[in-house]
Amino acid sequence: MLHSAGADSATGSADGVTGPVEDPTRSPGVRLRLDLAYDGADFHGWAAQPGLRTVQATVQDALHLALRTAQPPLLTVAGRTDTGVHARGQVAHVDVAEEAWAALAPRAFLRLNRLLPPDVRLRAIAVAAPGFDARFAALWRRYSYRVCDEEIQLDPLRRRDTLAHGVALNLDKMNQAAQACLGEHDFGAFCKKRLGATTIRELRRLEWQRTEPGIAVGTVVADAFCHNMVRALTGALLAVGDGTRPAQWVAEVLTAAVRDPAVRVAPPHPLCLEEVAYPADSELAARASLTRRLRSPAE
Amino acid sequence: MLHSAGADSATGSADGVTGPVEDPTRSPGVRLRLDLAYDGADFHGWAAQPGLRTVQATVQDALHLALRTAQPPLLTVAGRTDTGVHARGQVAHVDVAEEAWAALAPRAFLRLNRLLPPDVRLRAIAVAAPGFDARFAALWRRYSYRVCDEEIQLDPLRRRDTLAHGVALNLDKMNQAAQACLGEHDFGAFCKKRLGATTIRELRRLEWQRTEPGIAVGTVVADAFCHNMVRALTGALLAVGDGTRPAQWVAEVLTAAVRDPAVRVAPPHPLCLEEVAYPADSELAARASLTRRLRSPAE
Repeated sequence: MLHSAGADSATGSADGVTGPVEDPTRSPGVRLRLDLAYDGADFHGWAAQPGLRTVQATVQDALHLALRTAQPPLLTVAGRTDTGVHARGQVAHVDVAEEAWAALAPRAFLRLNRLLPPDVRLRAIAVAAPGFDARFAALWRRYSYRVCDEEIQLDPLRRRDTLAHGVALNLDKMNQAAQACLGEHDFGAFCKKRLGATTIRELRRLEWQRTEPGIAVGTVVADAFCHNMVRALTGALLAVGDGTRPAQWVAEVLTAAVRDPAVRVAPPHPLCLEEVAYPADSELAARASLTRRLRSPAE
Repeated sequence: MLHSAGADSATGSADGVTGPVEDPTRSPGVRLRLDLAYDGADFHGWAAQPGLRTVQATVQDALHLALRTAQPPLLTVAGRTDTGVHARGQVAHVDVAEEAWAALAPRAFLRLNRLLPPDVRLRAIAVAAPGFDARFAALWRRYSYRVCDEEIQLDPLRRRDTLAHGVALNLDKMNQAAQACLGEHDFGAFCKKRLGATTIRELRRLEWQRTEPGIAVGTVVADAFCHNMVRALTGALLAVGDGTRPAQWVAEVLTAAVRDPAVRVAPPHPLCLEEVAYPADSELAARASLTRRLRSPAE
């Protein structure tokens, strides 16, 4: 049984503070699913913040223009990425009036991509299946973290999404340490705590592979992530990989379940949200309902 | 037998105009080979030009500082890349005083990489084998050209080195057209002509592959390239791939051997110099001497 929060604030600001508020009693008109990719370098993360360039506000502004609605539509997102974090497989939903969508639909993809800046691309837009909720219906999120640990292999063309790590990494040790984190745990040691919010998550995959000479890529999959969790786990594993810490240290930190200042949060620019998975259409509503029920009482 | 010029001005300014001048009678002190990678986006190409940010001047400035020589050292390069063109496998040489190198050698790699900006990385620096000449001893150069021809696959993180092509490419047709260009030909149809310089080159490889969904990568290998040659060949093949021209058109253009205004020069930012190949150390001097002899009389 899952006890985890459905929201993915792995890398973003605290849940529910700046995000859109949903009123389940309101008639949704039509719900659209948007698949998005972005270069996070020049954004202050996903979540809209007054006076700052954010992905959410940028996409909402484009939707507002294209749909010609009175109010800017509010997006709900699967993974609230932090400043500097990228996405190739971000998913969001938005509820809009049926007439507004009908007018835009035939040319929505092209029109929105023309309105969006080059660092955000819409990969797909369509009416969502009944019960779809980008945030609550998600089964899991997958992130990648790209590191170059051999200075002669540094590719200046990839410097914006690759960490230059000065010491060669032992991936076997990192993967050994990662094993201890798999499954359902309280990841409080690797999270920014929020009062009343659970830090229990189910980690499905955490592994590092050498994809090309000098390049190590970490893959992490969980039902959801709490704030800073991917980057703190990565920071801990990098310390194991370069010999600063023994492999069992990660398990010790995890077991303590309190934020450990010895865990360094890895930089955001090598992190990318690659994929968000949803159940079959027939299971969407049940999944969203389950996730909502499992949220902590304080939320 | 090769009739081609040894200089690779595939993408750069006219040969010999702005490049370093070598005096073969001067004692070379010690000749260093530098392997370089760079993001060409913010450079006005390789070749030093007054008042402009170029790769050559940037690397020479770093060498000047690190070697503490009175004069900035002059680099000779294998591939004179044009504005916006990248490199992962650029090779250059420089002749410096033995004492200056002896003082720097133990920390040359780290020191130079600290002095260089993040968009240029030194991958290796070492004393070159006898007879080595980055330009004249090269056997061949390999470039890549990266295209995304499916809008939903556009990755904002790769927009700086990928062409967004609005029409799906037929790679079979492109490869069929490319076949006609292989071998030794006068590539005048695809080059900016220079008075007295030969446009005969030996094309060893020209092929396109789909490396991932929506991504097509062209690979081109020749003994050397004349100015604009890679980008003009690419432009011609893209016109075949998207159905604008029939496959046999490329052979017709090639046979005419005069610059054809119907051939559009493809943009520079998806082009990258991947590799420069040299013969075994024992063959370096003979290769450099052969290439020099085959240069056109006017040079």
